[in-house]
Amino acid sequence: MEDEVKLYAVAGSPFVCRVEIALNLKGIEYQIVEEDLKNKSSDLLNFNPVRKEVPVLLHNGNPISESLVIVEYIDHVWKGFPILPHDPYEKSVVRFWAKFIDSTCIPALFKVFGSNGAEQAIAEAFEQLQILEDELAAKGTKFFGGDDINLIDVAANFIAYWLGMLEEGTEIKFVTKDKFPKIMEWAGNFVKVEVVKKVLPPRIIPPKAQLLAVFKKRFGNS
Amino acid sequence: MEDEVKLYAVAGSPFVCRVEIALNLKGIEYQIVEEDLKNKSSDLLNFNPVRKEVPVLLHNGNPISESLVIVEYIDHVWKGFPILPHDPYEKSVVRFWAKFIDSTCIPALFKVFGSNGAEQAIAEAFEQLQILEDELAAKGTKFFGGDDINLIDVAANFIAYWLGMLEEGTEIKFVTKDKFPKIMEWAGNFVKVEVVKKVLPPRIIPPKAQLLAVFKKRFGNS
Repeated sequence: MEDEVKLYAVAGSPFVCRVEIALNLKGIEYQIVEEDLKNKSSDLLNFNPVRKEVPVLLHNGNPISESLVIVEYIDHVWKGFPILPHDPYEKSVVRFWAKFIDSTCIPALFKVFGSNGAEQAIAEAFEQLQILEDELAAKGTKFFGGDDINLIDVAANFIAYWLGMLEEGTEIKFVTKDKFPKIMEWAGNFVKVEVVKKVLPPRIIPPKAQLLAVFKKRFGNS
Repeated sequence: MEDEVKLYAVAGSPFVCRVEIALNLKGIEYQIVEEDLKNKSSDLLNFNPVRKEVPVLLHNGNPISESLVIVEYIDHVWKGFPILPHDPYEKSVVRFWAKFIDSTCIPALFKVFGSNGAEQAIAEAFEQLQILEDELAAKGTKFFGGDDINLIDVAANFIAYWLGMLEEGTEIKFVTKDKFPKIMEWAGNFVKVEVVKKVLPPRIIPPKAQLLAVFKKRFGNS
């Protein structure tokens, strides 16, 4: 049986982007179902009744929600490029960092924009980013995953790509080369990865105002 | 080689409790290292430099942090009682709910106590608990895991046990049998599970004032 893979998505979501990178790392064919967040489809509400959010992956009729849960599912089901290491200890280290990025760094960054660049929010975001900066410096590798990207890099795509757009759009420019040289170097490497390039350009360049509206609507108060 | 398993812990932490339940479900022998959160050991700071928090599991010299990451590690490394299902789709459903409890329900409950029972905080917590209530009603099983507990039940131990103590201690009593009959029934079943009983009684009954101090210090402002 041919796999049926559908991704319920909106352009401009770094969470959707995680799933698209994972699907492309595995070379999986999939269909995008564009959602209108102001008028969510009955499919989306039905497949993700708890969160009512994209991304949702529908694989042979089974709906999966939460971007990092979806990426782990993809890595488990499809062979090929390993997104998580196989070794249980290494796997736990990767999951730790992905969770740190997901539940600490990204909310701290959203607060910066939600608060229109409040000093306290910037100080808190800096503290979290410094931890990533130090980790990259300690590893001395191209990516969090080493020579290749892994779950940590995928989780952090917001920092590599969307943050720059958001900084530009709002003129809150705070992640600089002077302050976070390793993060900036990593971001440069990340957006040059073939699969990442493939995912980003066609879908991620909605008009800037629209992108900002998406971010503000979804994360402004978080 | 004999496995060396140490758990850096404090009494009264539902996050530590998750790991202890997992270790006991697998029948693993482990040594507790009690931490003083006001004066953290150099081991703890060294093993979890990012979060500087318990629980940390040290397995043959490898430190693992983040309670749900640790539970997944334990389930992967030790055979016996399965804490997550093997099937990748079922696994993703379980991870979805564990994450929902971890990152939405529990913070909502902490806000209730942090705000001393503010109306808005209670309304938000009710909304999240209602989702769990509906899920238990839809499943119609003894536990979130079915006939046996799984990762979801382990993640939710705070709701089954600590919430009651916190309600008592602060006199903010809001999770009632009338409002959440399924959750209350589940909580009753959960604390009767042999392994849960074994973990709870010896370690979880610090003097109530001390327990409240632990909760307030750690979660009061979250």
